[in-house]
Amino acid sequence: MQRHFDQELEDLRAQILRMGTLVEEQIKQSIQALVDRDVDLASRVIERDTLVNSLDVDIDENCIRLLALQAPAARDLRFVTTAMKISTELERMSDLAENICERVIELNEEPQLKPYIDIPRMANWTMQMVRECLDAFVRSDAVLARKVCADDDFVDNLTHQLFRELLSFMIENPATITRAIRLTFIGKYLERIADHATNVSELVIYMVEGKIVRHTIPPILSNRPS
Amino acid sequence: MQRHFDQELEDLRAQILRMGTLVEEQIKQSIQALVDRDVDLASRVIERDTLVNSLDVDIDENCIRLLALQAPAARDLRFVTTAMKISTELERMSDLAENICERVIELNEEPQLKPYIDIPRMANWTMQMVRECLDAFVRSDAVLARKVCADDDFVDNLTHQLFRELLSFMIENPATITRAIRLTFIGKYLERIADHATNVSELVIYMVEGKIVRHTIPPILSNRPS
Repeated sequence: MQRHFDQELEDLRAQILRMGTLVEEQIKQSIQALVDRDVDLASRVIERDTLVNSLDVDIDENCIRLLALQAPAARDLRFVTTAMKISTELERMSDLAENICERVIELNEEPQLKPYIDIPRMANWTMQMVRECLDAFVRSDAVLARKVCADDDFVDNLTHQLFRELLSFMIENPATITRAIRLTFIGKYLERIADHATNVSELVIYMVEGKIVRHTIPPILSNRPS
Repeated sequence: MQRHFDQELEDLRAQILRMGTLVEEQIKQSIQALVDRDVDLASRVIERDTLVNSLDVDIDENCIRLLALQAPAARDLRFVTTAMKISTELERMSDLAENICERVIELNEEPQLKPYIDIPRMANWTMQMVRECLDAFVRSDAVLARKVCADDDFVDNLTHQLFRELLSFMIENPATITRAIRLTFIGKYLERIADHATNVSELVIYMVEGKIVRHTIPPILSNRPS
């Protein structure tokens, strides 16, 4: 019985990882669509969000079934409730990739405002955070999870920097306002994806250590090279 | 044993309601701080967010304890997992009330851009959605929950309208850009609070009907008077 249950927990882990990989790809392609001004790609990412949604529902139903049939305790219970919550966080990340693509389609109605440098840089950091929070979950690695939480400050700083630059564009030339605001929104969406990666990491720390750390991690500066 | 467990479920319901009432108050006061240009009130709302955070942790720990000790089934299991997720949604609403207050403090560094009419109107709708999604939870009322989901479209439309108006301000007079963007953000925060109320409502429908409806409710127009 326990052996069968262990297998079911492994299946759940694999299911979360599959969903996470799909969400990473959604984020990556949304930024690709921005940089390449590729409306078709943006539309495909928007369509593919339904796939992420159905994975979210599958994982939720699977978790409820495991709770009902196996009544897990201690570490296994924390694993199942954490998986259920991580699935929600991943689904929201995918919604934000969809929002990026909606802005990409609108942005393509006008010429490009400026070469995109900061946004792809922010996106790279954000995607690394998403990858690492999933690795932390799969390997039950609380140290890596804490690193992801620390990196969130770096993405927040980049968003701030982007916002200031776009503001100076708008003030200099009001004809850029609509485009600059859409780019500001894209920056905000990436910042929120990074926030969700932080939420996942805090859930992983709870799963591993059995202690709820959200709302307690002090903002510390990332020591990663920029 | 079952009677004691029923009492524990009632206590959990009361705990969620207490948290919900506090979050409603946070949203209300954040808009009051905007309208009255009251920096002190904004600061108090920001401080009070830690209280909401600690309620979130308490509810989470309580839910895990109930799952571990009582191994609830069927409807009770759905109630406990739903309570755990609703607590997360409420905590995020409070974060957004905090974000509104941060923008209020920044906005007070300059004269008021225009009389605030649309934002308080959006806020009233949003607060009604928050109140009704909590009522739907407390009374296990799936009909009310579906109404809240439908009302979300109305708030989305108001955000769009606000955004267009602020855009015309910015284009006419670039000196208004910083303030107009901050007000746009406040509109977005309210829109996101309404999204969280929709999430809570979808969770309530699941709790009552045992069917996951998120990602399936079609956008229908609200029939409420404006």
